[in-house]
Amino acid sequence: MPDPPADAAAAQNEDASTIDPAALDAADPLASFGHRFVVPEPGLIYLDGNSLGRPPLNAVERLARVATEEWAGELIRGWEHWLDEPLRVGNVLGTEILGANRDEVAMCDSTTVNFFRLASAALEARPGRRTIVTDRANFPTDRYVLEGLARDRDREIAWLDSGPVDGPTTDDVAAALAAHADDVALVTLSHVNYRSAAIADLAAVTRLAHQAGALVLWDLSHSAGAIPVQLAADGVDLAVGCSYKYLNGGPGAPAYLYVRADLQPTLRNPIQGWFGQVDQFEMSQGFQPRPGIAGWLTGTPGILGLAGAAEGIRLVAEAGIERIRAKGVALTEYAIALYDARLAPLGFELGSPREAAQRGAHVSIRRSDARDLTARMIAAGIIPDFRAPDSIRLGLSPLTTTFTDVDRAMDAVARLANSS
Amino acid sequence: MPDPPADAAAAQNEDASTIDPAALDAADPLASFGHRFVVPEPGLIYLDGNSLGRPPLNAVERLARVATEEWAGELIRGWEHWLDEPLRVGNVLGTEILGANRDEVAMCDSTTVNFFRLASAALEARPGRRTIVTDRANFPTDRYVLEGLARDRDREIAWLDSGPVDGPTTDDVAAALAAHADDVALVTLSHVNYRSAAIADLAAVTRLAHQAGALVLWDLSHSAGAIPVQLAADGVDLAVGCSYKYLNGGPGAPAYLYVRADLQPTLRNPIQGWFGQVDQFEMSQGFQPRPGIAGWLTGTPGILGLAGAAEGIRLVAEAGIERIRAKGVALTEYAIALYDARLAPLGFELGSPREAAQRGAHVSIRRSDARDLTARMIAAGIIPDFRAPDSIRLGLSPLTTTFTDVDRAMDAVARLANSS
Repeated sequence: MPDPPADAAAAQNEDASTIDPAALDAADPLASFGHRFVVPEPGLIYLDGNSLGRPPLNAVERLARVATEEWAGELIRGWEHWLDEPLRVGNVLGTEILGANRDEVAMCDSTTVNFFRLASAALEARPGRRTIVTDRANFPTDRYVLEGLARDRDREIAWLDSGPVDGPTTDDVAAALAAHADDVALVTLSHVNYRSAAIADLAAVTRLAHQAGALVLWDLSHSAGAIPVQLAADGVDLAVGCSYKYLNGGPGAPAYLYVRADLQPTLRNPIQGWFGQVDQFEMSQGFQPRPGIAGWLTGTPGILGLAGAAEGIRLVAEAGIERIRAKGVALTEYAIALYDARLAPLGFELGSPREAAQRGAHVSIRRSDARDLTARMIAAGIIPDFRAPDSIRLGLSPLTTTFTDVDRAMDAVARLANSS
Repeated sequence: MPDPPADAAAAQNEDASTIDPAALDAADPLASFGHRFVVPEPGLIYLDGNSLGRPPLNAVERLARVATEEWAGELIRGWEHWLDEPLRVGNVLGTEILGANRDEVAMCDSTTVNFFRLASAALEARPGRRTIVTDRANFPTDRYVLEGLARDRDREIAWLDSGPVDGPTTDDVAAALAAHADDVALVTLSHVNYRSAAIADLAAVTRLAHQAGALVLWDLSHSAGAIPVQLAADGVDLAVGCSYKYLNGGPGAPAYLYVRADLQPTLRNPIQGWFGQVDQFEMSQGFQPRPGIAGWLTGTPGILGLAGAAEGIRLVAEAGIERIRAKGVALTEYAIALYDARLAPLGFELGSPREAAQRGAHVSIRRSDARDLTARMIAAGIIPDFRAPDSIRLGLSPLTTTFTDVDRAMDAVARLANSS
């Protein structure tokens, strides 16, 4: 990614130096949400809420309640309400955050397992087609699952190679579809790239895939809770994601899956478990899937993890995804202005798109000593994360990051980078 | 199941009426473990610890700590120790409770997902063989997964039909293997049947399967933490199970899988996820499995659920599986003696084996109005569970059930059954 022309950079430098972060925080309509989280160490600047979100106060309280009142108190009777929890929480996430219809999203398993199940189902639904389109820059677990499926089902992966900063363009996808005309079974990408935060054009890619007769499967892990998603309006077939990033569900919180209503009975869940069986407790012979998204459940859901996810998701829904997106844009714009002023002169490159419309809620900065610099930032009380080979990700989770955090972090990075 | 001859029954009746449950409780070497659990309603008689174990005090305390000190306090840095938790807890379970060697057991996913993965890997390892041997009385999720795999991989299931009380005998298994000579890829059974508590002969069935060139996969959900298992000594290939029953891990706590060391690199995990990848955070191209049982991990583990499981498993290890088994035998023998005295005359049938050596830690009693009777027991403060079509399961989880509980419960069942 080339730096901006000198004039533009100078203009931005000037702008950035005149911005008062405290004034931005004072004007932030979401500022009060910072007090809805447990923050035991207020001096710490946490810029990794895109990897593990902070715990909502309600989540910690609810976990205690689930352990004592429900597990200890209700014992097995807890299942009277736990049974529906994957669908109840899935509906809040689906309808209020992901733009899905009711009964299209369920909370269950891990992103990896759900991705495997949906990709597997998609391949089965396109038996005559041998090609899977995805991106070398896609999140590793998605790539690894696809490699296993390609091997097992005798398919080929057509790899896009979008590079370190910009996501795959619709032209890239169109070219791959044309190169494998009538042979693509599945197009699968991350909506927001885990390293660069580049946003793929979900609507356009979905349309292209459908025109080519393929199904589309989106990984929403880095977009859910950070940017609006319109699964129903965009006609998306399948999606998965995790709830521990911007949804603040807790470490390893349950993932979710989305299957468009009309596909729920025609695609087949390859892992047929008892939670997907009609009249589960009849324990009868012969698997018969429950109607709706419930047929895509498998094993017993983890109720403690689900409790954390439920509260994180409710808090995001309460704040409103449009307001969250607006603040995410403001935070990342501010971070990039400070980057131009303070870091570009120190040999950094910007690892995220400059256009706000093409960028999620984190900003990556790149330098060859990024791994070492990340460790020194952490020692200095600023927590970003490192992504191989040369990126420092600054996650600006809108509900828990202030403009003052961004200012102090960029100042510290500049200081540390100057002394290395 | 026929009732015992009248003489024997009369003798047992006499014995049962002379037994003082308080004396048995006073002599119980595990009695103190009852105080290691959260019991908010001491009057309640909980006979469903075989379905959802009570919370250990340590589990509730640790959950609070994980939420506040680790999730809130360590934030992303928690992964420095969370990353190894699936293997650390797996090693305690494997070596202290399941008779496995180190690095053969990992905590992850659900029983359903693990069963799918191991059954799938076993079929792949026996490509020329078309038959899977299992039991109609096996737990539903195992059966449903196998049906899906059989359909996807073009295999046939040879169903044993062991009936409602006794598990499949080794003769049943031998006959199925002979009927499908050189064609059986996989033999898979529950070690302890979920409805009857019948114990299958794990060592003998494993030996028979191996003689026939098949792999064997055991579901240990109803044996782990209730009866000793010797996976290594018995040469078992593969096993799975859940941690929320006798292991007291909490509702939907993570499951485990066991893959014998020499099979770990030769079988293949069909769901290749980033937690099974060497140098996971290099996020490199091309899946390469981690050596050892770590290569059988998939997605991000649920840390809250794992914390509960860790404490439940540690408590069982501390109590000692041999002592737990001895108490389980004493509790179920006592329950059957009381059954003979009080319930057999009321038209019940015993739904569990009479021989202690062939019975796990629960006792099923059968009558046509079992569903209704279960509801009335619960209303009377005694919690068993109902299993279709006609069984009441009395789970006598050794660490949390007293002989007095058994006496009071059998008395109440007799009273309620008499008034219906």
